[in-house]
Amino acid sequence: MSENKIPYKIYLSEEEMPHSWYNLRADMKVKPAPLLDPGTGAPMTAAELEGVFCKELVQQELDNDTALFPIPQEIRDFYKMYRPSPLVRAYCLEEKLQTPAKIYYKFEGNNTSGSHKLNSAIAQAYYAKKQGLTGVTTETGAGQWGTALSMACGYLGLDCKVYMVKCSYEQKPFRREVMKVYGASVTPSPSDTTEVGKKILAQFPGTTGSLGCAISEAVETAVTHEGYRYVLGSVLNQVLLHQSVIGLEAKTALDKYGVKPDIIIGCAGGGSNLGGLIAPFMGEKLRGEADYRFIAVEPASCPSFTRGKFAYDFCDTGMVCPLAKMYTLGSSFIPNADHAGGLRFHGMSSILSQLYHDGYMEATSVKQTDVFEAAEYFARVEGILPAPESSHAILAAINEAKHCKETGEEKTILFGLTGTGYFDLVAYEKFHSGEMKSVVPTDEDIAKSLAQLPQVQG
Amino acid sequence: MSENKIPYKIYLSEEEMPHSWYNLRADMKVKPAPLLDPGTGAPMTAAELEGVFCKELVQQELDNDTALFPIPQEIRDFYKMYRPSPLVRAYCLEEKLQTPAKIYYKFEGNNTSGSHKLNSAIAQAYYAKKQGLTGVTTETGAGQWGTALSMACGYLGLDCKVYMVKCSYEQKPFRREVMKVYGASVTPSPSDTTEVGKKILAQFPGTTGSLGCAISEAVETAVTHEGYRYVLGSVLNQVLLHQSVIGLEAKTALDKYGVKPDIIIGCAGGGSNLGGLIAPFMGEKLRGEADYRFIAVEPASCPSFTRGKFAYDFCDTGMVCPLAKMYTLGSSFIPNADHAGGLRFHGMSSILSQLYHDGYMEATSVKQTDVFEAAEYFARVEGILPAPESSHAILAAINEAKHCKETGEEKTILFGLTGTGYFDLVAYEKFHSGEMKSVVPTDEDIAKSLAQLPQVQG
Repeated sequence: MSENKIPYKIYLSEEEMPHSWYNLRADMKVKPAPLLDPGTGAPMTAAELEGVFCKELVQQELDNDTALFPIPQEIRDFYKMYRPSPLVRAYCLEEKLQTPAKIYYKFEGNNTSGSHKLNSAIAQAYYAKKQGLTGVTTETGAGQWGTALSMACGYLGLDCKVYMVKCSYEQKPFRREVMKVYGASVTPSPSDTTEVGKKILAQFPGTTGSLGCAISEAVETAVTHEGYRYVLGSVLNQVLLHQSVIGLEAKTALDKYGVKPDIIIGCAGGGSNLGGLIAPFMGEKLRGEADYRFIAVEPASCPSFTRGKFAYDFCDTGMVCPLAKMYTLGSSFIPNADHAGGLRFHGMSSILSQLYHDGYMEATSVKQTDVFEAAEYFARVEGILPAPESSHAILAAINEAKHCKETGEEKTILFGLTGTGYFDLVAYEKFHSGEMKSVVPTDEDIAKSLAQLPQVQG
Repeated sequence: MSENKIPYKIYLSEEEMPHSWYNLRADMKVKPAPLLDPGTGAPMTAAELEGVFCKELVQQELDNDTALFPIPQEIRDFYKMYRPSPLVRAYCLEEKLQTPAKIYYKFEGNNTSGSHKLNSAIAQAYYAKKQGLTGVTTETGAGQWGTALSMACGYLGLDCKVYMVKCSYEQKPFRREVMKVYGASVTPSPSDTTEVGKKILAQFPGTTGSLGCAISEAVETAVTHEGYRYVLGSVLNQVLLHQSVIGLEAKTALDKYGVKPDIIIGCAGGGSNLGGLIAPFMGEKLRGEADYRFIAVEPASCPSFTRGKFAYDFCDTGMVCPLAKMYTLGSSFIPNADHAGGLRFHGMSSILSQLYHDGYMEATSVKQTDVFEAAEYFARVEGILPAPESSHAILAAINEAKHCKETGEEKTILFGLTGTGYFDLVAYEKFHSGEMKSVVPTDEDIAKSLAQLPQVQG
C-alpha cells in the first residue's frame, strides 16, 4: 500500500467538532411514544420526571421538536480530552477480505472508559453538577457505562453510586477497580441495599442479575437519597441526543473526503451507539435528502428487535420505572449467563423502535461464538482488540463486505466500533478454550416474559 | 476554558509522520561502547551477532555513523494503524496544579499493546519476516513488549514465543490472554523449557523471575531452534533507533506551534521510551544548536542510573548474552517482588548510559507509592489511566510543575506518557487497599550483585 488519498485515520480538528447535538426526533414524522406513568397510564410530565432525573435532562428527554441543542462549553472542553475520535479506513481489513467494498469505522474506544459511553456520561454529570446535586446513581452491565460515569463524576467532584449486574461484577473485577480509581462506589446487583433488590433476591435466589434489575435498584437509591438523581447510559432520548456526536463527527469526516456510505451498521443493546452513529444520516433519510441502509445488530441471546414485541413495557425488572413503548422481550427477560459483555437489556430505545417499526431500519441477530470469531479476526488484521458489543457490528460489516466480493459491488460500509475488549478477556479466554456457548432463548422463554407485559394502550 | 490556540491534542497528518528514524549515535562525540564477547572480551562482530539477531537489525545495532534510516513503507503503513500518536497539552493538569508551567505529554498508549513498544516490535518483526525466518523469541516483564510483539507477529504471520517474568505472568493473566488472541505462545520464566531456566530454578527455587532471566531463556530458545532469532524490546541501540519516532513526532508537533520545551522527562527502565522521546532534542543539544534539561526517572526499587555502576555487564541473568557497557546493578539483581509493572531491568541502554556519564542528562529515582499517588491524581484530572511505568514520568513532571509554581517560572515541560494501566489493576488495587510497599534495595543488596560484574576493561 502506498500513501493513500484518504488516510488510515481521519481526525477532525477541535473546531470541526460539533457545537450542537442533533435531536433526531425533530425530523421524525411519527414521534416516539411518550413515557407513561405505570399507575395511571398517563404521559409522564416534566415535574414527575424531575424527581428521578436532572431538570435539564428532562427537557432534553421530552423535546421532540428542537433539532439542535448547543453543547455547553464545559462539555466541549471535556470532549477535547478524548475527542474527536478517529474515523478509520479499514484498508487492512479490505485487503485481507479481498473485497471491493470500502470499509470505515468510527472508533470510540480511545479513552479510559473504553467506549462511547463517556459522551453521555459527561453530559449527564455536568447537568447534575449544574443543578447543585450531591451525586448520581446508575446501573452498569458490562461496566462500560459505570466506568464512564465514574470518570465524569471524578472529574466534576460528584458522588457516584453504581449498581453493577452481578455476573459482570464477578467476571470483571478490574472494571470495578477502575471505577474505584475514579472514586465511585460499586455494588453488585441485586443487592440487599434496596427494597427492590431484596425482593428480587427473595424471588430469584442465586440470580446473576440483569440490567433491568440494576436499574430498579439505582432508581430507588436516587429517589430515597436527598441530593441524588438517577442517570442512565442508554435507551433514553437524551442519551441518543448526546451520542449524536458520534454520527456528526463521522459525517463531517466523510463529507470532507466526499464519501457517502451505502450501509451503516451498529450494534444494538439499548441503542445508545446505534442511535448516535446513525443520527445525522437518518435525519437526511427522514427529510428525503439521501438514502442509506441502516442495520442494527443484536445478540441472538437478547434479540429485542428481531424476536421482541413493539409494546409499552417497564424499563426495569422491578417495575418501578415509567413505561416506554419499545421493542421488548419483557422486563423479566434475562439473557443466559453464558452471554458475555453488554447488549443485555430487554428493551430498546423508543426512537429506534419507532424507526424500525416504520421501516427506516433493518435488524439482524448474530450468535456469540460467531461474534468472537469476527472479533479475533479483526484484532489480528486491524490491530484493535474490540469489545464483544462492538464485534457484533464487525461481524455484520464483514458479512456485507463478503457479499460485495460475491456481487462485485463497491459499496461503502460504515460501522461503529464502540469500544475495546481489554476488560473482556475472561470471555475471550472462554472462546479460545472452546467453553463458550451461544445459548439462544426458546420461543417459550420469550413468550413467558412477554406474557407479563403491562396492559396499556400505546 | 475557551477555544485555545494550541489544541488539547495535536495530531500530525500521515504525511507529517517521520519518513526516517533518527540515530542519535551519529551526533555523539563519545560513542556508546561496543558489545563484547563474554569469552574473549573482543567486540562482537556482525557475523557473530547474526546468530542471535536478524541481519538488518545487526547493521542498525552496529552503525554509529548513519544519522537517518529510512522507515520501510510496510512499517510506515503499519504505523498508520495507530500513529501518529497525540501530543497532548495538559490543560486540565495545569489548571488543577495552578502552575504557570506549560505541560505537554506524548501519549503512546492508544493501541492494543497499550504502549510505545509496538514501534519497535513491528520493525523487528518486519526484518525477521524479510529475512525469511519462521519466528522470533523474546522476553516480557510487565507484558507490554510481549503484547506488542504478538500483535506485530500476528499481523505478519510469524511465530512468536514469549518468556514472561513469572510474577507478571501470575499477576497479569489478561496480558497473556491478549498475546494468545494474537497467536503467541507464552511461557512463565524461569521455566524448564531451557537449560538456563532449569539451572536458575535449581539455584533459586521459588524465584519470581527477572527480566534478565527471561532474556537468557529467550536467547537460548532462539539459537537452538532453526529459523528463529531473538528480539528485544529495550536496551539495544536498534530499539532506541525505532523509538525515535516518538521524539520526532513530538518535535514536529511542537515546532508547528513554535513551542520549545525546557525540560524533557521520561521514565527509564532499559531506556526504550526515554531514548526515543529525547532523540531529536538530544541531537540538537549534542550539535550545540539548542539546550534542554533531560530527566530520566527510574524506580527506587531498581535504580540503575542513580545507584548502579557504569561498567561492562551481562544483559541477562544467565550470562549467555554479550557484555554491554552501561549503568548496571549487576546481572543477578532482581527488584523486590512488591515492585509492580515494568522498569525492572538491572541495566540501561548503552547510549543513554554514555550520555548520562558525559553529563548530558539528569536522573532521579522515585518511590512506588508516590508513583501510584501521581497516577491516580493524573487519571482523575486528565482522564487517562496511566501505566505504572509512565507514572514515574508523571510524578517527576508534576514535581517540576509545582516547582514552577513556587518560583513563578513559565517553563515548558514535555514528558512521555508511554502507556495505559488497564492491565495493572492488581497493582492499583494494592495501592488503594494500602497493601502496596516501596521496598528499596539496601546498599548491601546492590554491592552483592555488583560484586559479580565480569572482569573486563571497557
